[in-house]
Amino acid sequence: MAVRGGVPARMRVAVLNRPGRLELQERPVPAPAPGQVLVAVRSVGVCGSDVHYFEHGRIGDFVLRDPLVLGHEVSGRVVAAGPGVDPGRVGRRVAIEPGAGCGHCPQCRAGRYNLCPDMRFFATPPVDGAFGEYVLVRADLAFDLPDRVSDDAAALLEPLSVGIWASDKAGLTPGGSVLIAGAGPIGLVTAQVARARGATTIVVSDIAAHRLPAAERSGATSALAASDVPDACRDFDAFIDCSGAPTAIAAGIRALGPAGRAVLVGMGPDELVLPFAFIQRREITVTGTFRYAHTWPAAIALAASGAVSLDALVTDRFPLAQAEQALRAVTREGTIKPVVEPWR
Amino acid sequence: MAVRGGVPARMRVAVLNRPGRLELQERPVPAPAPGQVLVAVRSVGVCGSDVHYFEHGRIGDFVLRDPLVLGHEVSGRVVAAGPGVDPGRVGRRVAIEPGAGCGHCPQCRAGRYNLCPDMRFFATPPVDGAFGEYVLVRADLAFDLPDRVSDDAAALLEPLSVGIWASDKAGLTPGGSVLIAGAGPIGLVTAQVARARGATTIVVSDIAAHRLPAAERSGATSALAASDVPDACRDFDAFIDCSGAPTAIAAGIRALGPAGRAVLVGMGPDELVLPFAFIQRREITVTGTFRYAHTWPAAIALAASGAVSLDALVTDRFPLAQAEQALRAVTREGTIKPVVEPWR
Amino acid sequence: MAVRGGVPARMRVAVLNRPGRLELQERPVPAPAPGQVLVAVRSVGVCGSDVHYFEHGRIGDFVLRDPLVLGHEVSGRVVAAGPGVDPGRVGRRVAIEPGAGCGHCPQCRAGRYNLCPDMRFFATPPVDGAFGEYVLVRADLAFDLPDRVSDDAAALLEPLSVGIWASDKAGLTPGGSVLIAGAGPIGLVTAQVARARGATTIVVSDIAAHRLPAAERSGATSALAASDVPDACRDFDAFIDCSGAPTAIAAGIRALGPAGRAVLVGMGPDELVLPFAFIQRREITVTGTFRYAHTWPAAIALAASGAVSLDALVTDRFPLAQAEQALRAVTREGTIKPVVEPWR
Amino acid sequence: MAVRGGVPARMRVAVLNRPGRLELQERPVPAPAPGQVLVAVRSVGVCGSDVHYFEHGRIGDFVLRDPLVLGHEVSGRVVAAGPGVDPGRVGRRVAIEPGAGCGHCPQCRAGRYNLCPDMRFFATPPVDGAFGEYVLVRADLAFDLPDRVSDDAAALLEPLSVGIWASDKAGLTPGGSVLIAGAGPIGLVTAQVARARGATTIVVSDIAAHRLPAAERSGATSALAASDVPDACRDFDAFIDCSGAPTAIAAGIRALGPAGRAVLVGMGPDELVLPFAFIQRREITVTGTFRYAHTWPAAIALAASGAVSLDALVTDRFPLAQAEQALRAVTREGTIKPVVEPWR
Repeated sequence: MAVRGGVPARMRVAVLNRPGRLELQERPVPAPAPGQVLVAVRSVGVCGSDVHYFEHGRIGDFVLRDPLVLGHEVSGRVVAAGPGVDPGRVGRRVAIEPGAGCGHCPQCRAGRYNLCPDMRFFATPPVDGAFGEYVLVRADLAFDLPDRVSDDAAALLEPLSVGIWASDKAGLTPGGSVLIAGAGPIGLVTAQVARARGATTIVVSDIAAHRLPAAERSGATSALAASDVPDACRDFDAFIDCSGAPTAIAAGIRALGPAGRAVLVGMGPDELVLPFAFIQRREITVTGTFRYAHTWPAAIALAASGAVSLDALVTDRFPLAQAEQALRAVTREGTIKPVVEPWR
Repeated sequence: MAVRGGVPARMRVAVLNRPGRLELQERPVPAPAPGQVLVAVRSVGVCGSDVHYFEHGRIGDFVLRDPLVLGHEVSGRVVAAGPGVDPGRVGRRVAIEPGAGCGHCPQCRAGRYNLCPDMRFFATPPVDGAFGEYVLVRADLAFDLPDRVSDDAAALLEPLSVGIWASDKAGLTPGGSVLIAGAGPIGLVTAQVARARGATTIVVSDIAAHRLPAAERSGATSALAASDVPDACRDFDAFIDCSGAPTAIAAGIRALGPAGRAVLVGMGPDELVLPFAFIQRREITVTGTFRYAHTWPAAIALAASGAVSLDALVTDRFPLAQAEQALRAVTREGTIKPVVEPWR
Repeated sequence: MAVRGGVPARMRVAVLNRPGRLELQERPVPAPAPGQVLVAVRSVGVCGSDVHYFEHGRIGDFVLRDPLVLGHEVSGRVVAAGPGVDPGRVGRRVAIEPGAGCGHCPQCRAGRYNLCPDMRFFATPPVDGAFGEYVLVRADLAFDLPDRVSDDAAALLEPLSVGIWASDKAGLTPGGSVLIAGAGPIGLVTAQVARARGATTIVVSDIAAHRLPAAERSGATSALAASDVPDACRDFDAFIDCSGAPTAIAAGIRALGPAGRAVLVGMGPDELVLPFAFIQRREITVTGTFRYAHTWPAAIALAASGAVSLDALVTDRFPLAQAEQALRAVTREGTIKPVVEPWR
Repeated sequence: MAVRGGVPARMRVAVLNRPGRLELQERPVPAPAPGQVLVAVRSVGVCGSDVHYFEHGRIGDFVLRDPLVLGHEVSGRVVAAGPGVDPGRVGRRVAIEPGAGCGHCPQCRAGRYNLCPDMRFFATPPVDGAFGEYVLVRADLAFDLPDRVSDDAAALLEPLSVGIWASDKAGLTPGGSVLIAGAGPIGLVTAQVARARGATTIVVSDIAAHRLPAAERSGATSALAASDVPDACRDFDAFIDCSGAPTAIAAGIRALGPAGRAVLVGMGPDELVLPFAFIQRREITVTGTFRYAHTWPAAIALAASGAVSLDALVTDRFPLAQAEQALRAVTREGTIKPVVEPWR
């Protein structure tokens, strides 16, 4: 039987019924199935993909057909443990990894569960996310938190994971150099990870000048206008695109030295023109990332040690009733990362 | 002093003075400098890049300004050893690795001497190649041959090296699958290497139907028209392009499964349209190759063991005086690899 | 509800109640749980670890406390599918991967499920194996077989997996060299995998001269007495120990060249004396293997392609009632691999 | 002709004629050969291997037969450039990489020049080192220094390179854990590199309690007595031995988790007892290091960025006439790294 104490029968959730409109609803608080925990949500970061579903009702092949709860950058506190789960976990502060692979397919078995075709991922149709007071999650995907990691920082372990994954694929080395295109939240955490890994030349570019100071605060040794990249950058060890902009990607690849590595994180158009002869002559490697796999332990350790600093990225806080404003805040100048606090 | 016996004072070479025209000249036979050997050439394979210089006088930034000797797929016999070289090497049959890095730059020191900016490579302006009776080469780039490797096969260790390098970057694994676009000499040796590495699904495609039977003889488990790739091929572990054709490259990448690897060997246009969203969603890795590095020992071992079969690729033989015909033979239907034999 | 046709209510199993004694018992045929299939066993290879449990009642920390069914190299036919499993699988010939990780621990999530602390593995206390007419297994661990792979060969995909895993860790490359110590079944399949991967120098050693001919039939380019290794072998790329003998391991490591790799597969004493200064001066890498992970697809492909040949390893066949004789046959001169056929 | 200005004809060097005795001699200042530079030495770190030659006259197979100049951790200023070297290098502050591979053997060509059998290395018989006013070095092995790297720090890029190389082989990852045995100079720089790479659990152990505070200043998150390791440390990602002590090595390996990596840097006895069954069950990788390859650019970048701090390791300074005292200082309590300043 599930261990559970003091949890109400019903909860509020913010639901996307159709593009452009969130509605507050009441729903029953679900009971954890075997292997699951129920988490009272503390902080939910708002991500560009949430905004994309909100505005367009789809991302690629994932189409909004039924009402959907957004939010996949999540921290909280365990309030009930399902059958088979250590009841001692109730009360623990946790960060949630929002995607669960099937565990049995070749990708899952090879440790690449982010590529599982049956992945169930928060806030991706038909799976609900965390813009609500409570969420269920597989117990092993709710990671215990040390005190030094705040609720907000714990929510932002998700974008941090994106940066860890990208940096790993980019093979950043101590004393090495990296160009990062895009000074949004992903670019900023990626710069922080690059610094934590010992990269000593970290250049962040963006088309918006107002975003550059945040890059410098996030570990960039230099921040510059995207238009300056072709003249200013060459022979980098690695390029990580967090912009999705074709121009930035082409310029970033041309900024690489022999055996350089390009990692494309930002989502963009379906097709892309790449400098083929340049890639061949320098034996450059280009890869894309799709989410991440087994990054939370490292993310927690980096946040707890102070090697990365996530709290400073939170610029706006909203109660659940204003989740729609949180979505609209993302593109506002001065905003880096808004969070929704469903408990208020 | 150099050890040298029975070498004449002058030799014949076939010289490219201007695009479209080879001329036979007499030149002095050079003496080996310290660390060099003089090699009496036995067999020289004709490569598409030789043909390109012959027809256009340039490849990319490499432009024919002075007369050039073509030919970089070379075998022969050591006839003189320069100062500091073991005189016992005179008389040895050798295969020649045609490129020499500077040895001191960061790329050379990291073992990526193929990316050395000061690489000196046979038949690449301003360095002469081997369409002549004798060539000089650094002693360590003339590899001793076992009897089982013929002179022709020894010359073809150069394209074999291209295939070894590509297969290595493609990470081909035993029991794995690979799609190879292009059934020219590079595609065929790559298929042979794939088979030697234990790949069990080896599909070779080409737009020219007459080239497919040779692919089947080279280890392809299936050979098909390029236009059939989109329907017939999916979820491959690796794709190696030996065609340089943008359509084939796009189709090949779309034939990859999650975490698939694309290696682009064939030279094509400066820019290329790639399926960006597909690459991201599957975390596909795309890389290009530029020649190869430290492949001759493996190439010799593979040829000597019978794991690959190079002699069967030689379809035409020409004396030095007909080197121009050898260049023109490359594109002829039925020709796979013509060789020039400068000793006759 | 489970799909199931023509399966009897009870079955025979051979049970190890105490060391040195197998007893035939009747047990109910179990019903597949959700996600499981029931397999009618066709062929079960006998492994040294089965013999070790039979003789000593333990291997390391795994101690026989309750009756145990041995046998973990298994092929069969699906006769019933549990809830949630495609009923179309009933009737399929399958090879069984005998170990199931928990799927949720850090090792499983990283794709190293062989190192899962909660691994459940056939014939390892307290989990029963396949010396019986039927076994249950997770559906994704029962791999469909092509016709070209016989029931015996399908059972031997398990030791083949050991060889694939070891070869992979040894980084065997086409044209490379490997020394394999021990010409038992694991040594022989490892030699076959080495050949399939393109290694061109494959030396197998054993202290027993009568085992060497089988090594030559399994792809060894040379087979020699273990005592000859120190004089005959040097500068190998890789060494794979399938003997567990400290003398062979020390000699094998000393046979490695710079940057050589040693992979220790054979089980031996708890501690081992290694040539420390030699390992440092040559930057040799030493690692051990524990079973394998996600190898069945490659193993099936290799067996089906003919790149490896497993049927020739089966030297003895026993009905279930003679499973004890099968265990005793393992150490007999002339025996390579005995199999038990529980259906007779 | 060599560019050279203001260099005297003769210089002082400290020579090891026989174990236990350094003598100051006058020698002619040599002229740089083609490709070389002449460097006026500023700072030379004293290493345990210098002390070993001083005391025992040999290290392994390297035996003192002729007088030898010690010192291989070297910084200085270019005072003359040999033929073929950019004369603009005269006047530059440089750090010297003290080993030069042959450039032509398989190890050099593969980028592993540290394993070159013909490596010429400072202060290793028969090659002289840098306990003298001037030294010759290949121009590409004299690396230009930014102002922020002091002469002392530049000398210590050599031990830093040892730490970079070891950390790289240990695969340290951001947010990961590492146990380092030995708090001597190598252990301390390795801890600094681990911190620079983002390791968040860095435990340094030593048998000498007085060395532990320096470890904490060098980035260790915990420093403890070697005898506490077995109880305090388990499931580490990596272990780097900088002690050479068999007990520390065995304990360090047993402190590793599944798939852990042990890197043995410290020199010790010829043979070593390792926990074989433990290594197998966890698939632990053990490797040794021999010097390093192509680490100076990263070392300079790390030192210049402040990610590592080398100046604080210098505890004692000696003029050339007191080089013998510098050697004797190494083992003194309180000494971390003595340097010799040959210019005074």
